Amino acid sequence: MGCTGGFERNSERIIMIDLFIIKVGGNVIDNPVLLQTFLEKFATIPGKKILIHGGGKIATRIGDKLGIESKYVDGRRITDAATIDLVTMVYGGLVNKQLVAKLQANGCNAIGLTGADANIIPAIQRPVKDIDYGFVGDIRTQTLQTAPLKALLEAGITPVFAPLTHDGKGQILNTNADTIASTLAIALSAHYNIRLIYCFEKKGVLRDPADDNSVINLINEEIYQQLLEAKILTDGILPKLQNAFGAINNGVKEVLIGHADDVLSNTTDKVAGTLIC
Amino acid sequence: MGCTGGFERNSERIIMIDLFIIKVGGNVIDNPVLLQTFLEKFATIPGKKILIHGGGKIATRIGDKLGIESKYVDGRRITDAATIDLVTMVYGGLVNKQLVAKLQANGCNAIGLTGADANIIPAIQRPVKDIDYGFVGDIRTQTLQTAPLKALLEAGITPVFAPLTHDGKGQILNTNADTIASTLAIALSAHYNIRLIYCFEKKGVLRDPADDNSVINLINEEIYQQLLEAKILTDGILPKLQNAFGAINNGVKEVLIGHADDVLSNTTDKVAGTLIC
Repeated sequence: MGCTGGFERNSERIIMIDLFIIKVGGNVIDNPVLLQTFLEKFATIPGKKILIHGGGKIATRIGDKLGIESKYVDGRRITDAATIDLVTMVYGGLVNKQLVAKLQANGCNAIGLTGADANIIPAIQRPVKDIDYGFVGDIRTQTLQTAPLKALLEAGITPVFAPLTHDGKGQILNTNADTIASTLAIALSAHYNIRLIYCFEKKGVLRDPADDNSVINLINEEIYQQLLEAKILTDGILPKLQNAFGAINNGVKEVLIGHADDVLSNTTDKVAGTLIC
Repeated sequence: MGCTGGFERNSERIIMIDLFIIKVGGNVIDNPVLLQTFLEKFATIPGKKILIHGGGKIATRIGDKLGIESKYVDGRRITDAATIDLVTMVYGGLVNKQLVAKLQANGCNAIGLTGADANIIPAIQRPVKDIDYGFVGDIRTQTLQTAPLKALLEAGITPVFAPLTHDGKGQILNTNADTIASTLAIALSAHYNIRLIYCFEKKGVLRDPADDNSVINLINEEIYQQLLEAKILTDGILPKLQNAFGAINNGVKEVLIGHADDVLSNTTDKVAGTLIC
């Protein structure tokens, strides 16, 4: 496809992004100063936008007090019955509604949702193979409901998603926030030109992992192959890039990986992070 | 006004109710069998409907485990900082999202909301007079946002409200579910012919408090005055009737007080509870 990124050639830019889908992780949720700054910036992004938030450590802290143990098998977290109730409370209630109230205070007309709400994100409980993950949901992408989301966006309302889905049989399920973000982006790409933005703890994909200022501002398929051949990409960033190209190859116009602090510039043509297209 | 109630004279009935606003209390939320039956019935109510739920004792149980004390002054519950976080989690997350998932399982396209979502129910923190109630919200009825609710209802989506509002400055507030129900009903009465239904632990207003089958099926202003003069109404039911006539006098067509088990018949002309109009 050979995109070159609008930030390099403003005058030739063809794609007009009309929906930003932004995922912010637990590291921001857990840090009140980072979070406040992020929300203020997010609120000022003009036009249509969707926020997906991770959980953060607060669920673990509250779970500890409630005597709900965090369980892991082979390093993967298991969502048992007590844990799904815990994250429904904490992610779907405390974190989600506090984000909504704070966005409202900053003039952003947010609405807090899980995938159960308006049946937007139907899922199935992950089948047991080697590991029983418990109440973890794999999204049924083919039945994802975009109509209510479109209606909210067209009404000037900003959906804010907790990382929860449901099985259609009454059970809430725990689902990875990155996956929700990319799945919503792909589903909505039939209606909007989307830039999917992943906020993480680095400024972007780095040419030199030791140098925070060595951000690669643009990665297209051609550059991606060059970076792979030069073995410049670390193990940590590879899955993110694979996900990003997965979204690009399924209709999403652009994916951006960057720092939460840079969210505002990363919605413009002058990106601070890494634009993948 | 002198209504006689459609259930008495079906052929002469003029009002066609096109929105049911139904409040279900903590006693139903706390009882899994009652709740399941209620939700199955609620899901089958045809047409437009809104559910407002109370909290139930689960917040107290979880609060006890977290070391959050329930505080009372003169018998009135105080919502301190720890308690508002607790009820945001439990009412806005656990209870609300489980209700939504269960309604979805019963074929009702529910969406779980607080008053902060889409800024539907703005409130102010109750001013301190004799008692500081803490983070309790009094609804700013003049700025209530009906447009997003109308859009959801018209799209066939059923809003499900937790008893929470917000102050527009980032703070979630605790607000009585009965008050949310009547305030939403009054605000939406400009657009719909509304029957506001309060589900409680009795079948309706009783002529004889000792006889559960002595339900008075219709109370209008004239009958109300007769009941007052005959001193038939108990202290417990009087505030409910005052609230009911408050709604009627502000545009709501009908108020019904009845048992959760009777919710389905109470949406028809053959009411099992007490219709106030």
